[in-house]
Amino acid sequence: MTALWRSLLSASLDSNSHLKHASYFQLATVKPDGRPANRTVVFRGFVEGTDKLQVTTDSRTHKIEEISHCPYGEICWYFTGSWEQFRIQGKLDIIGEKDMDPVSCLLREKVWFASSLRSRLQYLGPHPHIALSNTEDVKNSLDPCTGPVGTFCLLTLDPDQVDYLNLKSNQRIVFKRLGGDVDGNCQWMQQEVNP
Amino acid sequence: MTALWRSLLSASLDSNSHLKHASYFQLATVKPDGRPANRTVVFRGFVEGTDKLQVTTDSRTHKIEEISHCPYGEICWYFTGSWEQFRIQGKLDIIGEKDMDPVSCLLREKVWFASSLRSRLQYLGPHPHIALSNTEDVKNSLDPCTGPVGTFCLLTLDPDQVDYLNLKSNQRIVFKRLGGDVDGNCQWMQQEVNP
Repeated sequence: MTALWRSLLSASLDSNSHLKHASYFQLATVKPDGRPANRTVVFRGFVEGTDKLQVTTDSRTHKIEEISHCPYGEICWYFTGSWEQFRIQGKLDIIGEKDMDPVSCLLREKVWFASSLRSRLQYLGPHPHIALSNTEDVKNSLDPCTGPVGTFCLLTLDPDQVDYLNLKSNQRIVFKRLGGDVDGNCQWMQQEVNP
Repeated sequence: MTALWRSLLSASLDSNSHLKHASYFQLATVKPDGRPANRTVVFRGFVEGTDKLQVTTDSRTHKIEEISHCPYGEICWYFTGSWEQFRIQGKLDIIGEKDMDPVSCLLREKVWFASSLRSRLQYLGPHPHIALSNTEDVKNSLDPCTGPVGTFCLLTLDPDQVDYLNLKSNQRIVFKRLGGDVDGNCQWMQQEVNP
């Protein structure tokens, strides 16, 4: 059975689908010095058959180091069309070039090929967040059949709590994950709280 | 002299001013257990004559405890109309009911009276994030002359780094605060980096 928060999220994605930025959310992590970091990332769907959210990122960005140090994140996803917010916290997992698990490799490949060619090309760009490079030598074409390049990482967030807030109805519901059932499906408890 | 990031931010606020949500951003903090937290808050302007961003909040929310424990935050402010992102990190300060510093008290009062009556009424509502309360007894009117109620807090974020990204031009500039000059004005260095 689908958790209610998943149904709420599907409905929000539907009702905001005319907005390009509806698939963007902010992902907070913790830096090695203990201070928070926060940036906009793009939702790349759920890992099939699970509640894990997918995001793609470059292995050369700071978040990789941050997540290696503290593997927890909180997504804040505000839908500007419907005035709804989902705060989704959970454990992050990095699937990179060196990941040898066959299921993970396949997943990374699948998300790579589902990305636009323009998105894929970004992973061949110069090293992010260092002094502006001469980009003349940067590749600006890529064979569509080429598999994931070395810098391409898949991040997954496995939620353990979801805080839903509707600013129109002033309704707030907190969902907490309980253990899985015998089939490994997640069980969720939910409680309506004061906004 | 105004730092360049302030000019860029002013321009973004202007060019997105037709969007109600342009004054909303996501504020990340760190919880006492070391995991990140992230939520949407409303920009309430700068403290006059400074680079400190203002946000208002209820003293009964989790972020107050979080900030008391770790006083650092990162704002992620994405402008959906102009495809620009500002990541603003810095030190957070809570100005609450018990703050006796006269300048802080005055600032808190000023932001209170600058808020709409509807916003002010929220601070008289039931305790946030606990099981839904019977709201029949909650006050739904407030004398416009009444000063800040006990639960009303002003949060300020004093930036020490701003990371600006323009997704249309693919330009990224990082601003870092140096010490102040003889007049106490902040000096900033800036560097264009790879996006």
